Amino acid sequence: MSIQTHRIITSRVRGVVYHEMKNVVDTVRGNLTVGEFGFDLPFRPLRYFITYHVPEQTTRGEHAHRACAQFLLSVAGQCSVKVDDGERTEEIVLDRPTVGVYIPPLVWATEHKHSLDSRLMVFASLPYDPDDYIRDYDEFLGLVGKSRLVRD
Amino acid sequence: MSIQTHRIITSRVRGVVYHEMKNVVDTVRGNLTVGEFGFDLPFRPLRYFITYHVPEQTTRGEHAHRACAQFLLSVAGQCSVKVDDGERTEEIVLDRPTVGVYIPPLVWATEHKHSLDSRLMVFASLPYDPDDYIRDYDEFLGLVGKSRLVRD
Repeated sequence: MSIQTHRIITSRVRGVVYHEMKNVVDTVRGNLTVGEFGFDLPFRPLRYFITYHVPEQTTRGEHAHRACAQFLLSVAGQCSVKVDDGERTEEIVLDRPTVGVYIPPLVWATEHKHSLDSRLMVFASLPYDPDDYIRDYDEFLGLVGKSRLVRD
Repeated sequence: MSIQTHRIITSRVRGVVYHEMKNVVDTVRGNLTVGEFGFDLPFRPLRYFITYHVPEQTTRGEHAHRACAQFLLSVAGQCSVKVDDGERTEEIVLDRPTVGVYIPPLVWATEHKHSLDSRLMVFASLPYDPDDYIRDYDEFLGLVGKSRLVRD
């Protein structure tokens, strides 16, 4: 049996944190990966959702949240998450149940390249609220104090 | 697109509730299943864990909790959960990401028959505490006010 402890890696995108969760590998009893909310992860969720059977060409997300924080965990299969704070972007591959990414409010996120067997679990800090979504990229840039260079 | 609403089915085992979670089926964007903690589900978790690569012959669980409540969701693959309140037992198959089972404290639970691709997500109402585990079945029966018939 081997135990890997929880480890975090800060992203170059403001507030985004990549997590390698505690993982217990046991070839006899099976493996177990664990996280404590409010301790390993920075919030206690009020909601979860799972996306599944997402066509490989489909892009999900393409929005930011005003107040809701999220933690994304690829429980099965894999997908890519692109995060963007209006200044820097980063693409993160989630390809095993032991790694996840924390996305704070006011970060634009896009999920794509889902494998056929992808099961992406998202923990959300707040209940569903359509008014919490920022779906317009220019509005997002304004809210984070950036704007596109205007070219005539 | 079709939407199935959240539905609960009471088990014959005390306090155990089977949940069919809200499910949005969308062949273009992919499917999404969702649950709100403290609303659809009776508690806000302080912890999650995922078991994976559990050998098919392996049995996990085989204990009850004194205070911790759990919600089990088979995010990928399938497994069977046997629940036992000291009087009645029931075997529940979790074979898709849209169904789960709530297990209150003082119910003996066993997970077995994991498929090769099984990824079982467990939400727990309390942090890990080894003293919360009841691993002796006779002690469990005593705590729930039952005892085995003594045969000489």
